[in-house]
Amino acid sequence: MKQNKTSISSKCKRSRCPVACMLDILGDKWTLLVVRDMFFGKHTFKELQQSMEKIPSNILADRLKRLQKEKIIDRTLYQERPRRYAYNLTQKGLDLKPVMQSLIAWSNKYNPDTYDMSKVK
Amino acid sequence: MKQNKTSISSKCKRSRCPVACMLDILGDKWTLLVVRDMFFGKHTFKELQQSMEKIPSNILADRLKRLQKEKIIDRTLYQERPRRYAYNLTQKGLDLKPVMQSLIAWSNKYNPDTYDMSKVK
Repeated sequence: MKQNKTSISSKCKRSRCPVACMLDILGDKWTLLVVRDMFFGKHTFKELQQSMEKIPSNILADRLKRLQKEKIIDRTLYQERPRRYAYNLTQKGLDLKPVMQSLIAWSNKYNPDTYDMSKVK
Repeated sequence: MKQNKTSISSKCKRSRCPVACMLDILGDKWTLLVVRDMFFGKHTFKELQQSMEKIPSNILADRLKRLQKEKIIDRTLYQERPRRYAYNLTQKGLDLKPVMQSLIAWSNKYNPDTYDMSKVK
């Protein structure tokens, strides 16, 4: 299929700037917290729901859908009745590690009250 | 003044997690675009208003105030009548460079339609 290389990608809503495109996906108060929790070994809806920040379940459901749509996470069925899914970071999601590490370093530096989380796996 | 080290900092609204505290300040679709434009040499309200993403002026005014409050930027008067300010990144703001670089690298990797902005000054 012919593709117009000058057109804005479906993922880029506002411009072709990589910062803007990233913020179109991850620019809110919750999405990166879901990613954070997956880096720290949480995988089920129930586990993710028990975040320190008490993410509302409708927001969690919405962000999981969005992260799947963007192929940052995928899900696998681990229980049939009732149907339960485990969510995992894809390679695209795992590649957010440097982003997480740099923002953790910045936050730790400028807000001493924050937990030292520099050892993201 | 005695400080309760276990209390949540005024900057940490939801938890003491550095990711959450950073998102409390920068977790929206616009704030990092203002920071981006300052990294690329834009300093006046007028210059910042002319972003590719056409940031609404009320949002720009709000984000500039918030960034000043968080000491990520400061401002200097460069014209008396009418009063005009130039906005600059503080050291805290400049220290966001690794965050910007890592998210640009991620976005460039996974969305080939994005501009190559890997050479952030």
